Amino acid sequence: MIKAGIIGSTGYAGAELAGLLLGHPEARVVWYGSRSYVGEAYSSIYRNMFRMVDAACLDDNMEELASQADVIFTATPQGLCASLVSDRILGQTKIVDLSADFRIKDVKIYEKWYGLQHKSPQYIAEAVYGLCEVNREDIKKARLVANPGCYTTCSILTLYPLVKEGLVDVSSIIIDAKSGTSGAGRGAKVPNLFCEVNESIKAYGVASHRHTPEIEEQLGYACGEQVVLNFTPHLVPMNRGILATAYASLKGDVSYDQVRAAYEKYYGGEYFIRLLPEEVYPETRWVEGSNFVDINFKIDKRTGRIIAMGALDNLVKGAAGQAVQNMNLMFGLPEDTGLKRVPVFP
Amino acid sequence: MIKAGIIGSTGYAGAELAGLLLGHPEARVVWYGSRSYVGEAYSSIYRNMFRMVDAACLDDNMEELASQADVIFTATPQGLCASLVSDRILGQTKIVDLSADFRIKDVKIYEKWYGLQHKSPQYIAEAVYGLCEVNREDIKKARLVANPGCYTTCSILTLYPLVKEGLVDVSSIIIDAKSGTSGAGRGAKVPNLFCEVNESIKAYGVASHRHTPEIEEQLGYACGEQVVLNFTPHLVPMNRGILATAYASLKGDVSYDQVRAAYEKYYGGEYFIRLLPEEVYPETRWVEGSNFVDINFKIDKRTGRIIAMGALDNLVKGAAGQAVQNMNLMFGLPEDTGLKRVPVFP
Amino acid sequence: MIKAGIIGSTGYAGAELAGLLLGHPEARVVWYGSRSYVGEAYSSIYRNMFRMVDAACLDDNMEELASQADVIFTATPQGLCASLVSDRILGQTKIVDLSADFRIKDVKIYEKWYGLQHKSPQYIAEAVYGLCEVNREDIKKARLVANPGCYTTCSILTLYPLVKEGLVDVSSIIIDAKSGTSGAGRGAKVPNLFCEVNESIKAYGVASHRHTPEIEEQLGYACGEQVVLNFTPHLVPMNRGILATAYASLKGDVSYDQVRAAYEKYYGGEYFIRLLPEEVYPETRWVEGSNFVDINFKIDKRTGRIIAMGALDNLVKGAAGQAVQNMNLMFGLPEDTGLKRVPVFP
Amino acid sequence: MIKAGIIGSTGYAGAELAGLLLGHPEARVVWYGSRSYVGEAYSSIYRNMFRMVDAACLDDNMEELASQADVIFTATPQGLCASLVSDRILGQTKIVDLSADFRIKDVKIYEKWYGLQHKSPQYIAEAVYGLCEVNREDIKKARLVANPGCYTTCSILTLYPLVKEGLVDVSSIIIDAKSGTSGAGRGAKVPNLFCEVNESIKAYGVASHRHTPEIEEQLGYACGEQVVLNFTPHLVPMNRGILATAYASLKGDVSYDQVRAAYEKYYGGEYFIRLLPEEVYPETRWVEGSNFVDINFKIDKRTGRIIAMGALDNLVKGAAGQAVQNMNLMFGLPEDTGLKRVPVFP
Repeated sequence: MIKAGIIGSTGYAGAELAGLLLGHPEARVVWYGSRSYVGEAYSSIYRNMFRMVDAACLDDNMEELASQADVIFTATPQGLCASLVSDRILGQTKIVDLSADFRIKDVKIYEKWYGLQHKSPQYIAEAVYGLCEVNREDIKKARLVANPGCYTTCSILTLYPLVKEGLVDVSSIIIDAKSGTSGAGRGAKVPNLFCEVNESIKAYGVASHRHTPEIEEQLGYACGEQVVLNFTPHLVPMNRGILATAYASLKGDVSYDQVRAAYEKYYGGEYFIRLLPEEVYPETRWVEGSNFVDINFKIDKRTGRIIAMGALDNLVKGAAGQAVQNMNLMFGLPEDTGLKRVPVFP
Repeated sequence: MIKAGIIGSTGYAGAELAGLLLGHPEARVVWYGSRSYVGEAYSSIYRNMFRMVDAACLDDNMEELASQADVIFTATPQGLCASLVSDRILGQTKIVDLSADFRIKDVKIYEKWYGLQHKSPQYIAEAVYGLCEVNREDIKKARLVANPGCYTTCSILTLYPLVKEGLVDVSSIIIDAKSGTSGAGRGAKVPNLFCEVNESIKAYGVASHRHTPEIEEQLGYACGEQVVLNFTPHLVPMNRGILATAYASLKGDVSYDQVRAAYEKYYGGEYFIRLLPEEVYPETRWVEGSNFVDINFKIDKRTGRIIAMGALDNLVKGAAGQAVQNMNLMFGLPEDTGLKRVPVFP
Repeated sequence: MIKAGIIGSTGYAGAELAGLLLGHPEARVVWYGSRSYVGEAYSSIYRNMFRMVDAACLDDNMEELASQADVIFTATPQGLCASLVSDRILGQTKIVDLSADFRIKDVKIYEKWYGLQHKSPQYIAEAVYGLCEVNREDIKKARLVANPGCYTTCSILTLYPLVKEGLVDVSSIIIDAKSGTSGAGRGAKVPNLFCEVNESIKAYGVASHRHTPEIEEQLGYACGEQVVLNFTPHLVPMNRGILATAYASLKGDVSYDQVRAAYEKYYGGEYFIRLLPEEVYPETRWVEGSNFVDINFKIDKRTGRIIAMGALDNLVKGAAGQAVQNMNLMFGLPEDTGLKRVPVFP
Repeated sequence: MIKAGIIGSTGYAGAELAGLLLGHPEARVVWYGSRSYVGEAYSSIYRNMFRMVDAACLDDNMEELASQADVIFTATPQGLCASLVSDRILGQTKIVDLSADFRIKDVKIYEKWYGLQHKSPQYIAEAVYGLCEVNREDIKKARLVANPGCYTTCSILTLYPLVKEGLVDVSSIIIDAKSGTSGAGRGAKVPNLFCEVNESIKAYGVASHRHTPEIEEQLGYACGEQVVLNFTPHLVPMNRGILATAYASLKGDVSYDQVRAAYEKYYGGEYFIRLLPEEVYPETRWVEGSNFVDINFKIDKRTGRIIAMGALDNLVKGAAGQAVQNMNLMFGLPEDTGLKRVPVFP
C-alpha cells in the first residue's frame, strides 16, 4: 500500500486527488496538508468526504512528511515545491508536483513568465514532465515528476501527432481554449463569484498566459524546432472541463486518412485517449469526472487548415487524475489503477 | 457474475444504471434495451461510455431478456413494466422496477394518481418496496422490487425516524422539495430546454404530484395511521440533486438530543445515510454522483416545529444507485458493492 | 429633475439602482458613493455602464451629500444608515434606506435579530415601511422610507390578502423561499464562488434568518394579531429571482373564487402585481429584470391548506425597483415612472 | 406611430423584438405572427409579457399583413421570407428580414451553404445588408433590409477596421466564436435540453457553419478582395451572449496606437460600439440585454498576430436590437430610439 501525502489538499485539485486516492486500491493518504486549515477536520472543508475521511489537516512540513510517505503530491501555488524540495527529501520519497515549478527546462523562461525566482533550479534537469502518454518510460524511473498543467495537457495531446509527424506548419498554430471555473481555484475573489461568472464568457491572459511556454516547449521537443504559438484561454460558466480548439495550416494536401493514421499511431493503444469517430467532436460533458481525453479533428479544404479539438476534465486528466496516473507508473502499477471511473453525465 | 438487463437504458436513470453496473465487480449488462434506439450503438447515445460499452441497443422483449438475465431493471415510463411482467418471467429472473407500477399497494390510488389502468395488479402484493434502509430483510427475499421514486426516497428517509418514533404530528407535515432537471427526463420538450430552465425556479405539480401518495403510504406504515400531507416539488437549474425541506409540528417539548437519538437509532449503522453535525445542513453538491443521503434537522422553539432536511442525487440514491443497492441485497452481496463512489465536487 | 445620491452604489442592489436611475426620465444620480472604491471610475467597477456613467466613486459623507441631493438611497450594510442619519440631513433631503435599519418598529427585536445596537432609534417611529402596494399613502408623505427586504417583499405580498381577509390560520404559516445568488451580495467569500453555488441547492439561516421578524411584523399589522411563522430561505444557482412558496391552513371551507376575490380586492388595480390565471404558477424567469411580482395560489382540499406562491426579481422589486417606486411616490410622480421594463427572457 | 408586424414572433428573436417594440416610443406591434400558436394569447407563450400584450397570435399571411403594417419583421426559418415577398408587398410596406434569405449577394453561395433553392432571387440585388454601422446610408433608403446574423454581426464588427485599413493579412483570419444557447432557437430538441447543454462546451458546425460565407462576403467588400477564413462556433451554457475571438497576422510591425486609431476612425462616433480601454477585454456579461458591442484587441509581438475580440447580446445587437436599429434608420428616427437599455448585470 502506497502511503501518499498531499500538500495543498484543500484546493480543488488537492481535493480531487484526495477523492481519487480514497478509491485507489493500492494507495492511501497519510497526510492532508493545508496551511489555511491546520487542525480542522478535512471533511468539514470538503463535506462530500464526510465520514469517508476522518483526518484533520496538517501543515506543509515536507521534511516530516517525507519520512512518512512514499509519495508526496504538491498541489500548491507556484514556487512552494521548489522552495521545499531537497536532496534529503528526494532520497526518502517520490514527488509529483502539480505546480509549474519543474515543468519548464529553461529556468529563465520560467522566471520570466511566472515572475518568480526559482529556488531549486538544480532539480529541473532531473524532473520528468509527467505527460504519461508521451514520457511514459521516463516517468517510470523518475523520483520527481512535473505534472503538466490542465490547459497544456489538453493542448499538447490535441496537437502532438500533427506536430510529431510534421503534418502542420508549427508557426501557424493557434490554440483557443475554454475552461470551467474550477481551474481558477478556490480563492475568495470577486471575479470568481457565482454572479460574475454565470451567464458570461470572457478571454483572459490574452497573449500572456503562463501555460503558453509550457505548450511551446513540449511541442518543440516533438518537432525538433522552436515553436511559438498563440494560446488564448477563456472562462466558461461551468464547474469542470477544458475544450481546446486548435488551428494549424497543413503542409500540403494532407488527407483525412493520413491524419487519422497519425493519431492512431500515437494514441491507438492508449486507454485514456479516445479518438472519436469522424465528424463527432469532443464535448466536455462526455469526459466529466473521468481521466479521458476525447480528441478529433476536421480538415478544412477551403483554407488548408486543420481544426483539432480535445476535451478533458481539468481536475482529473488536467491535474489529479494525471498525477495518480504518474504515481501508478512510478510505482510499477497498472497505469489505470483507480482511474477507471465512468464519466458522469448528465 | 450477475447478468443484468436494462429496459429503458437510454433515459437518464437507465444510463446512470449502465454506468454504475460498468463499475460493479459482480455484475455486467447483457441487454441495453431502448425502444427508440434499437440497433444503434449505445455509446453513440451516451458518448461518456464511448469505448467502455460496445453493445448496440435492443428492444424491450422481456420474455427473451428473462431467459438471458439474472435480473432485469425496468427504467421505463409508468405502465410498461406492469404490462410485460408475467409468472414465466418472474420464474426465470428477478425484477427491479424503477417505475411506479408496483410501489403503491392500493391499486385504486395508483390508478387515480397516474391516470392508468394497472395491467397486472396480481403482483402488487408480492412486490417489495425497495427502500433499502427500511425494508432490507424483505428485499433480500424478493423477486420483484419496486424501486422508490427520487422525491419519495428523499422525503421518506428525511422524515422516517420522526414519524416512526411518534415525535411529530403527522397531520402537520409539509414537504417542500427541489430537484435538478435530470428528474424531468430526456424527452425533447420545450419546458426542459436550457434557456427555459436556466436562471429560473418554479413549483410544479402543486398539490397533485404523483409522488405524494407514495410518501403518504410509506410514512403511514411507519406510524400506523393514515398520513395526508402537502408535497410541492420545484425545478432547479442544475443537473442533479434533490433537497427536501420538511416541516412538522413536534408533539410537545422535544429536545435536540431526543430527536438526534431517534435519527441515530434508525440510521446510526447505515453506510449510505449521513447524519450531519449539528447546525450543518444538507446541500446537494456534497452528495452529487454518490449513493449518499445527507440528513439533518433544526428545532424551531418559536413555532414548535421541526425543519428536517435531506439531500441526495436523484439519479443515484433516487434511482439507479438504489436499484443497484436492491440488486446487491437480492443477490446476497454486500450492500455497498459497486456503490462506494466519492461524491463529485465541484 | 430629482437629484439622487446612492451610498453603497457598488453592491449589486446599488448598481441596479444606478442602472434604473440612468433610464429614469425625472431623476439623475449626482453621487455614486462607495467606500471601497473612492476615486475609481464607476464604470470600471460596473462595465455594463461603460460610457453611460462618467462619474468616479465618492465616499459616504452623508452631510455633504444631503446638501446636494433631493433623495439619498442607502444600499449599505445594516447599521450604517442609522449611524449617519440626523435631523439636519432629514431637513434637507429625503432618504430611502435599503438596509434593515428602519424596517422594524420594535427596536429590541431589531437588535436581537441583527446583533447590533441601533444608533438612532428616535427615527424609527416616523420611518414608513416602503411596501408601496400596502403603504402607498404614507409613503407619499414620508421623508424617511424603510425599503423592504427582498424575501419580505415577496413573502408579504404573496400572503397579504389571505391574512388581511382572515382566510387563513396565521399560526399555521410556513414560508419556504428560494433566491438567486445576487441576494448574497458582491463580497468575496468562498461559499459564493461559482463552483460552490453552481450545481447545488441548500437551505441557510434555518429558523434564524433576519427577514423573519420583518415578515411577522407586517403580516401582524394586516391581521391585527401577533404572527409567528417559519421562514426558510434557500440558495439557488441562478443570478436573480426569488420564489416564495407559502403554506397555510384555510379557516374552514374556502373556495377558489373567494380566495381569488380577496387577491383581486387588494391587487386588482396594481400595475406591478400580476395575478396569474388559474393553474398557472409563478416562475422567476418571467419577472427577471422587471419590477413585477407574479402571484398565484392553489387550494389543496385534501389537507385543507392553501399554497400561495410569489415570484419577483430580488434586485428590482426586491430592492432597487421598489426603492425607485418609493421615490416616485415621495416626489409625486406616477408610480411606474422609469419602471416599465419588460422582463428579460430568456 | 409605426405599425409593425412580426412573422415568427414566438421564437426567441421574435419575442425579443416584441419586447423591444413594447418599449419603443414610436412603434407598436399590430401583428404577432406565429404559425405554431395561431389563436393563442401571445402572453400565454411568453409570460414575461403577461398583461403587457393582449393580442393573440396570427398566421403568416404576409399579403394581409402588408396592408396593415408599415414594416414587417420576418424572424423565421431560412426560405420563408424569400417565398412570401412580392412586388405588391414591397410596394406597401418595408421589410426587415432576420433570416439569411437576402444577406448573401451570390445566390449560388446561398443555395450551396443553406441547401435551399432561393424563391425570389430578383430581390437580392436591392436588399441592403443591415449592418447599421457600415451601411447606414443605404439602409435609410431601403425597403428590404437583410438583418445580419448574430455571429456575423459580432465577427464583422470585430474585424472590420483591421480589414478595411489593410492592417492584417486577410488570408490568415481565424474566428473562434462562442454563443449562448438562445442562438439555437426554441425548438424542442434533445441536444438543447438543459442537462445536455449545462456543464459542457462544444464546437459545432466545424468548417461548415452557414455564417461563414456571410462574414467572408462582407469582409471582402471591406478590403476589396476575396476573403476565405475559418469560423468555428461553440455552444456555451448560458442563455445569451456571443464572444468572438479573432486571430490575424499583422502586415508588418503595426503599433497599438495605429490599430487603436483604426478602430477609433470607424467606431469613434458610434453609440452602440464601445471600444474598451487598453488591456480590458470584452465579456458577454457587460452587454447582456443591450444593443452594445464591446470590442478590443491585443497585439502579440511574439507571433506577429493580433487578437481582436468582440462581445454582444445575440438576441439584441445580434438580432432584434439591430432589426429595430434598422427600422429606426428606415423611418428617419434617431438610430437609438427605444434601444438605450442599460445592460442587465448580474
